[in-house]
Amino acid sequence: MDVLAATSVGPLSERARRAGAAYAGPGSGPGRTPSGPRPIAFTGGLPDPILLPTAALAEATASILGRDANAALQYGGVQGWDALRDWLAGHCSIIDHGTLTADYFCITNGSAGALANVCETFVDTGDIVGVEAPSFPLSIRTIRSITPRIESIPVDDDGVVVDALERTVVGLAGSGQRMRAFYTIPTFHNPTGSTLILERRHRLLDLCRRYGVLIVEDHAYSELWFGDEPPPSLYSLAEGQGVIKIGTFSKIMAPGLRAGWCQALPPVIAALVATRCDMGTSPLLLRALEELGRTGFIDQHIDRLRIAYEHKRDTMLEALQSHCSGMARWNTPTGGFFIWVTMTEDIDPKTLAAAAREEGVTFVGGQAFFAEQATGEGHPMPFAPNNSRHLRLAFSNVAEDEIPEGIGRLGRAMARAAHA
Amino acid sequence: MDVLAATSVGPLSERARRAGAAYAGPGSGPGRTPSGPRPIAFTGGLPDPILLPTAALAEATASILGRDANAALQYGGVQGWDALRDWLAGHCSIIDHGTLTADYFCITNGSAGALANVCETFVDTGDIVGVEAPSFPLSIRTIRSITPRIESIPVDDDGVVVDALERTVVGLAGSGQRMRAFYTIPTFHNPTGSTLILERRHRLLDLCRRYGVLIVEDHAYSELWFGDEPPPSLYSLAEGQGVIKIGTFSKIMAPGLRAGWCQALPPVIAALVATRCDMGTSPLLLRALEELGRTGFIDQHIDRLRIAYEHKRDTMLEALQSHCSGMARWNTPTGGFFIWVTMTEDIDPKTLAAAAREEGVTFVGGQAFFAEQATGEGHPMPFAPNNSRHLRLAFSNVAEDEIPEGIGRLGRAMARAAHA
Repeated sequence: MDVLAATSVGPLSERARRAGAAYAGPGSGPGRTPSGPRPIAFTGGLPDPILLPTAALAEATASILGRDANAALQYGGVQGWDALRDWLAGHCSIIDHGTLTADYFCITNGSAGALANVCETFVDTGDIVGVEAPSFPLSIRTIRSITPRIESIPVDDDGVVVDALERTVVGLAGSGQRMRAFYTIPTFHNPTGSTLILERRHRLLDLCRRYGVLIVEDHAYSELWFGDEPPPSLYSLAEGQGVIKIGTFSKIMAPGLRAGWCQALPPVIAALVATRCDMGTSPLLLRALEELGRTGFIDQHIDRLRIAYEHKRDTMLEALQSHCSGMARWNTPTGGFFIWVTMTEDIDPKTLAAAAREEGVTFVGGQAFFAEQATGEGHPMPFAPNNSRHLRLAFSNVAEDEIPEGIGRLGRAMARAAHA
Repeated sequence: MDVLAATSVGPLSERARRAGAAYAGPGSGPGRTPSGPRPIAFTGGLPDPILLPTAALAEATASILGRDANAALQYGGVQGWDALRDWLAGHCSIIDHGTLTADYFCITNGSAGALANVCETFVDTGDIVGVEAPSFPLSIRTIRSITPRIESIPVDDDGVVVDALERTVVGLAGSGQRMRAFYTIPTFHNPTGSTLILERRHRLLDLCRRYGVLIVEDHAYSELWFGDEPPPSLYSLAEGQGVIKIGTFSKIMAPGLRAGWCQALPPVIAALVATRCDMGTSPLLLRALEELGRTGFIDQHIDRLRIAYEHKRDTMLEALQSHCSGMARWNTPTGGFFIWVTMTEDIDPKTLAAAAREEGVTFVGGQAFFAEQATGEGHPMPFAPNNSRHLRLAFSNVAEDEIPEGIGRLGRAMARAAHA
């Protein structure tokens, strides 16, 4: 803080000190300047550049500006444009087998803005919030910026371990405390790719209902399923009671639109809207999205994405089989952007990191996804004890024809780290 | 809260309860359905629709999407695109007679996002923050959402009354308390249109330096000057020490771009960026702005706006002279969007509101701009005792040829309210 003291602005707030981690999401850091060959990047949870709906967005923005510039360029309100929320209501009513209306939605600055809005509206400093271990680091940071009291609940191949959540919730209740909210990514989880099985969904809902735990259900990836549709959302199973569902256009359209949403019962949406002081997101971009929703483009685009990302997942799975067998195991995600790799004990993670840099391949080390470096807070951690034994590989952003070469480099790096 | 109880999401946070006012900025409410003639609206601090840079933005967005779609549609980082911050650095170095670089800026979701970012980074719940009385209601809401302890400092025709601020700050210090920050709109103030005179700027800086009060300086309107350039910013006089300056593209380009910024010494900017968990604003829109900055369009556009808004101000002043003389007095703002009207004692504000509705003219009543309805908190309030005796008239958004008719309606409504 010496450097801040020289600016005469005074001390940081508690929130700033809690939030002030290095990680601020993809694209936030300085550019990498690798010394070896150009790395093949399996890092960011980003769409494939060739799958971005560029032409459609160019056409839609031009059409909006030609037709309705004043509405697109003035303030658009905090809740977001009615017609886009109408479209979302129709779209999400099919997904969640419900009869939603525009009042069940507010538009946010991506799902990051949605989670911040939920935390600011329903979580006080000092409240206890449960997160999955592992989970999306930016979400952990958002929650920590609101409250320092975070409980980590392990995830396995069937999603979050509800028994472990129950032990934590019941343990807290035993000492007169309550878990205020539980943040979960039940479908095509980031980073593990796992999906919460139906039986656990019911048990999770029952548990949270009994103990008054608000469920914050992040569905960033859930429309990108391969093969069979995933199980019903927690929101739909609960008919909205006690659940706020978060969605985003970042993965099904483009992150650069900064448009996500909260889906909840109308009084909850009203509370979320009343808490915000941000004057909303860009009405120009929301109108472009509405046009592409109404004309059917978004639905067709999602169909294309499912096929394309499934193919990329298969390419990565085949390459892993060819190059990493015996050195690691991995799951077969049924949707989303990620494969979660668990290396054998004889691979040293630090040596691997150095070797991967030299080989020219990047990924995100598993330790980035845990709220605590320390493990074993009274319940079993299936991915513990050494979180750095895991890697998250994103097959989404890399060019498909680079995947075999990139996984080949990863395999060579693993082999070097195993023999180190 | 009965209606929320039925949703099983639990209680609102303290922040939500503090923030949960009805006012959420222009465009946030339901549409008006007036029963009389279509009202002429002097309400919103919005640009004139015919002055929105629609064609330039259409061209710039098309050009960016054609040339650099991937960068424009992926995540762009929390601090905002380097090249736009480079342009801002050059642009603001001229305004503030400094040698700023991109490191002195972070891009935010409008100036609303900038103020929220500043408060979240430097203000804790329970801290005391000073605001002007009157001030911009959304800013008051943002501050109140962070801390309930707000001190109102009166504004007169020469800007905030520094003597009154000094009495408050010294009084707090006498009881071992500190004003953590002071939020001010020193130039073309919203709602009064007044500009802080140079002598008071120096005294304000000296006071805040002595007592460790962070100055948050909102410059939403300050580039839109008529005639002479306004006095130097507090930031420039202090060479950045103890000051964070807030700016926005909303008034000089378009609110719908949702792009504003903080200008501060680089370690302060680093702290602001590290506190955010929102993954930034739309890189597509930031790149369009950068293109229009780099090619000189924005500077030329600001020149056009100065001429156009000065003309509209003059039209409104003439109409006030013709229709409201003897019933009210008003200032002559030297920039910005607003004229502040103070009615004589014999006009009943409630009767005026009803008569204005019938005549078909809208404005914002003065009481909306005060942190407290109660007045006289130990220092003189030049605009007290009856804040509803004031009206804010925006000449910016209304069509210029409707201004005389609208002010004529206002004059008729005042006459009716005076004889009531």
